[in-house]
Amino acid sequence: MDTLFTKIIDREIPADIVYEDEDVLAFKDIRPQAPVHVLVIPKKPIPTLDAAEPEDALLLGKLMLAAQRVARDAGVAESGYRLINNCNPDSGQEVYHVHLHVLGGEKLGPLNARPTQA
Amino acid sequence: MDTLFTKIIDREIPADIVYEDEDVLAFKDIRPQAPVHVLVIPKKPIPTLDAAEPEDALLLGKLMLAAQRVARDAGVAESGYRLINNCNPDSGQEVYHVHLHVLGGEKLGPLNARPTQA
Repeated sequence: MDTLFTKIIDREIPADIVYEDEDVLAFKDIRPQAPVHVLVIPKKPIPTLDAAEPEDALLLGKLMLAAQRVARDAGVAESGYRLINNCNPDSGQEVYHVHLHVLGGEKLGPLNARPTQA
Repeated sequence: MDTLFTKIIDREIPADIVYEDEDVLAFKDIRPQAPVHVLVIPKKPIPTLDAAEPEDALLLGKLMLAAQRVARDAGVAESGYRLINNCNPDSGQEVYHVHLHVLGGEKLGPLNARPTQA
């Protein structure tokens, strides 16, 4: 199943791409939740982390290292950043193509802010 | 530099371990932020994601697959879960040994709740 991200990989719809290699693409989130908010995706269309197979291990690691590089390029490696992968409904996953959010550029919020928390 | 997590790996201090293999250890967070909150760490003491080297790619991918397994074992693979890696101060990283938080078991909060958000 094609998602929005397949169309970005295929250049069918535009995105602000900040990194690309053979296996990985990274582009700015169109609804940023922090001063730096980049999505890092595998070109292979794996719908969720739960759908990843053992043979995807190296690809998943490359995804994390691409996120590391994106954070360095954005100037937030030392100040700090957060990687987030949402998997399935309780997480709020919106696009069913594995992606790592890279958030930085400010003091980030709690790991899991509940409605009763400020 | 030894951290708390090295001592957990070496069984010098106790932890509620839920998964272990040659490369990875997973144990329950002692201050859970969701009904399921497990930390997945490499046995290799890499202080931050920013300190990971290209040769750590496979290890980082194994870490994500171990998180996948932990989520399945905890019964939240289908309902959903979130992986978080905090890197350096703005993220709130507390222990300088790479770890993935696995959070699930409830509808999770926003990616980055700011103080003005409910």
